[in-house]
Amino acid sequence: MTIENLSCNKSFEGWHKQYSHHSDTLNCSMRFAIYLPPQASNGKKVPVLYWLSGLTCTDENFMQKAGAQRIAAELGIAIVAPDTSPRGDDVADDEGYDLGKGAGFYVNATQAPWNRHYQMYDYVLHELPRLIESMFPVSDRRAIAGHSMGGHGALVLALRNPERYRSVSAFSPISNPVNCPWGKKAFTAYLGKDTAAWADYDASLLMRQASQFVPALVDQGEADDFLTEQLRPEMLEAAAGSSGYPLALHRREGYDHSYYFIASFIEQHLRFHAEHLSR
Amino acid sequence: MTIENLSCNKSFEGWHKQYSHHSDTLNCSMRFAIYLPPQASNGKKVPVLYWLSGLTCTDENFMQKAGAQRIAAELGIAIVAPDTSPRGDDVADDEGYDLGKGAGFYVNATQAPWNRHYQMYDYVLHELPRLIESMFPVSDRRAIAGHSMGGHGALVLALRNPERYRSVSAFSPISNPVNCPWGKKAFTAYLGKDTAAWADYDASLLMRQASQFVPALVDQGEADDFLTEQLRPEMLEAAAGSSGYPLALHRREGYDHSYYFIASFIEQHLRFHAEHLSR
Repeated sequence: MTIENLSCNKSFEGWHKQYSHHSDTLNCSMRFAIYLPPQASNGKKVPVLYWLSGLTCTDENFMQKAGAQRIAAELGIAIVAPDTSPRGDDVADDEGYDLGKGAGFYVNATQAPWNRHYQMYDYVLHELPRLIESMFPVSDRRAIAGHSMGGHGALVLALRNPERYRSVSAFSPISNPVNCPWGKKAFTAYLGKDTAAWADYDASLLMRQASQFVPALVDQGEADDFLTEQLRPEMLEAAAGSSGYPLALHRREGYDHSYYFIASFIEQHLRFHAEHLSR
Repeated sequence: MTIENLSCNKSFEGWHKQYSHHSDTLNCSMRFAIYLPPQASNGKKVPVLYWLSGLTCTDENFMQKAGAQRIAAELGIAIVAPDTSPRGDDVADDEGYDLGKGAGFYVNATQAPWNRHYQMYDYVLHELPRLIESMFPVSDRRAIAGHSMGGHGALVLALRNPERYRSVSAFSPISNPVNCPWGKKAFTAYLGKDTAAWADYDASLLMRQASQFVPALVDQGEADDFLTEQLRPEMLEAAAGSSGYPLALHRREGYDHSYYFIASFIEQHLRFHAEHLSR
């Protein structure tokens, strides 16, 4: 396992670093970013929050815009931000912003041409943490969070792998992708027309059946342009009510889908994760 | 005076907004961003910090990356971020990133073809605050800050107009532009080959002669790639020592020229300005 350092910036007495590596899971070269808090420089193993970004994003959006490093430095949490899809000239793509590169939807594609590279579920679940835990001073205490498409990814990964994550949170997640345009388009392409294969990647369907619980925190802006048609947090709330899932979902008046919203509430999310990561 | 609202995002219970307007000073349409803290929604007039960005930037870099809104919301300070140069198809430009669009250097150009639009000194000093103070719930208590080229601009504006600003701060300013490659290139183009005309735009020369003081705070990363050749903070320190200027200059080990550096110390800058704006 080799990784190449691409950049390095001191940030709140810790370090923001970008790396590239060859992913066997995705069959291409991938970039990720990691924020290492100052505690990680003192020989101490720190827990890790994985952050999954939304459509069109890379590893950079969250690290540049969320303002998370200040709190991660205080709490002693590393943050890892992978890219949102496989990349490279030979990776299948689509003209739409919501399919192909930048839009991996954190699934394992089964349909050609996507299945050759688009295995983001396995990458985030297995290969990336294996690499992070072997190359950096981090423990195996993991939390996961994300925004929009990445909120969907974080919820699905935690709901299907409760033994892997201490806590999960999301901003403006695509809560019920089998019933929204973004989800239907992506799942049809990646997973095929048989909707039976889609249920494994739908947070609302998974939460309704859940019996093992990962504490979950969700924030949703009420002025989000995608709220009604694409995000549908009411489906997640109904599922949690049905299974008794420990979900705290906050609706925030006036806030939209942007990183200005995420920055306004990221401190609450990091403190939520820190509480569960320290147990 | 008319302005057009371009965007609006709720942020830390206040509002980030972008506007365009026709600038008579710059003879073109300009965009700026304003952050209005929650206190400004309660009929109270709040003080304003003007932020001047560096080479290649627009109004967006600081608002998206510095993480300033959290503290501005706490302290009740508005922040205004203008663009870094005139813009438009008929505005003179250069192939280099360090001249022309995105590189106005906050001077009033006297040389053709630049003098038709490049009057950023007058724009930031007069037209922009006049517009801001007539259109938004802000007082005439002003502070000014900036990064790199914008740090140069902030220091020059405060040093030449001590009655206009309560305080000034800068990250990684171009401290002695008459003696560095960026400054020599820009000043030759905008102000002409006669270096006598350059002294009015050099913070170190101005600070050496200063008799009226605006309290000044400067942060400089010691791992900044531009430190030795372009920024030269030691010239500013020597000038302050000579005139007894109230300059606090901090060198920060390991920090570079990026917004990761700015974000790490912006809270200290905003608290410094708040102290002087409240007097």
